[in-house]
Amino acid sequence: MIPARATVITLGARDLKALRDFYSGLGWKLAVDLEGFAAVQMRGAVLALFPLEDLAADANAKSAAPERGLRGFTIAINVDRPEQVDETIAAVRAAGGRVTKEPETAEWGGRSGYFTDPEDNFWEVAWVPPESKMAAAIRVAGGSD
Amino acid sequence: MIPARATVITLGARDLKALRDFYSGLGWKLAVDLEGFAAVQMRGAVLALFPLEDLAADANAKSAAPERGLRGFTIAINVDRPEQVDETIAAVRAAGGRVTKEPETAEWGGRSGYFTDPEDNFWEVAWVPPESKMAAAIRVAGGSD
Repeated sequence: MIPARATVITLGARDLKALRDFYSGLGWKLAVDLEGFAAVQMRGAVLALFPLEDLAADANAKSAAPERGLRGFTIAINVDRPEQVDETIAAVRAAGGRVTKEPETAEWGGRSGYFTDPEDNFWEVAWVPPESKMAAAIRVAGGSD
Repeated sequence: MIPARATVITLGARDLKALRDFYSGLGWKLAVDLEGFAAVQMRGAVLALFPLEDLAADANAKSAAPERGLRGFTIAINVDRPEQVDETIAAVRAAGGRVTKEPETAEWGGRSGYFTDPEDNFWEVAWVPPESKMAAAIRVAGGSD
């Protein structure tokens, strides 16, 4: 049996301290803060920061990460009200995040915007209608159901 | 205030159906299964699958994702007992996952192995000592504390 869990997301950092400071600057709390590793206390999955070359070595992989552009993944911050997407994107901008997409209402009925950290890790801020299957899945994942 | 949440991880898929079938083949349940979007019910963050070009367009970004190699991130499945790392990696291999690192005990006292899906999204299977700060952070993230 393979546990269906996504409990930590680790980002391979080029400048671990700068990335840690960026996330601290969003008002997020560090659960672990070591010389070569940091973890940010989130709800959902924990966000871990580890030097890119160390992450590749740990995974026994070759790093193929380009410095800029979307590297094939996004992480979402799901919020409780549509207007909270706008509030969050505004707060991210004030904290120095680069907003790549202003909040807009999507075809599927939700609302979302995007920002990146200094190393082009993309974050979506999203509200999904509470009666949707996706909202139900998020509730179950977080253990509130 | 910027909610500290990592509630959905979206992978940009080159072949959405193949990726969906891979994750279904691990015994994981689809919470959403549409023509151009799928979501896998996890604990922690929900795993979403969305075509790579659509994800880049949604984020208003250029995709820079190479086809092969570690793209700068990993997702962890945190398990409850060290031997469960070995059991999980064996089950992943039996289900067709590519194991890049056999389970081993790490310097930091935990145990971990790695595998990839067919599109080189890297997953770590990890046990962290329950008394560690990291284990505490994972418990809080999942809402069990």
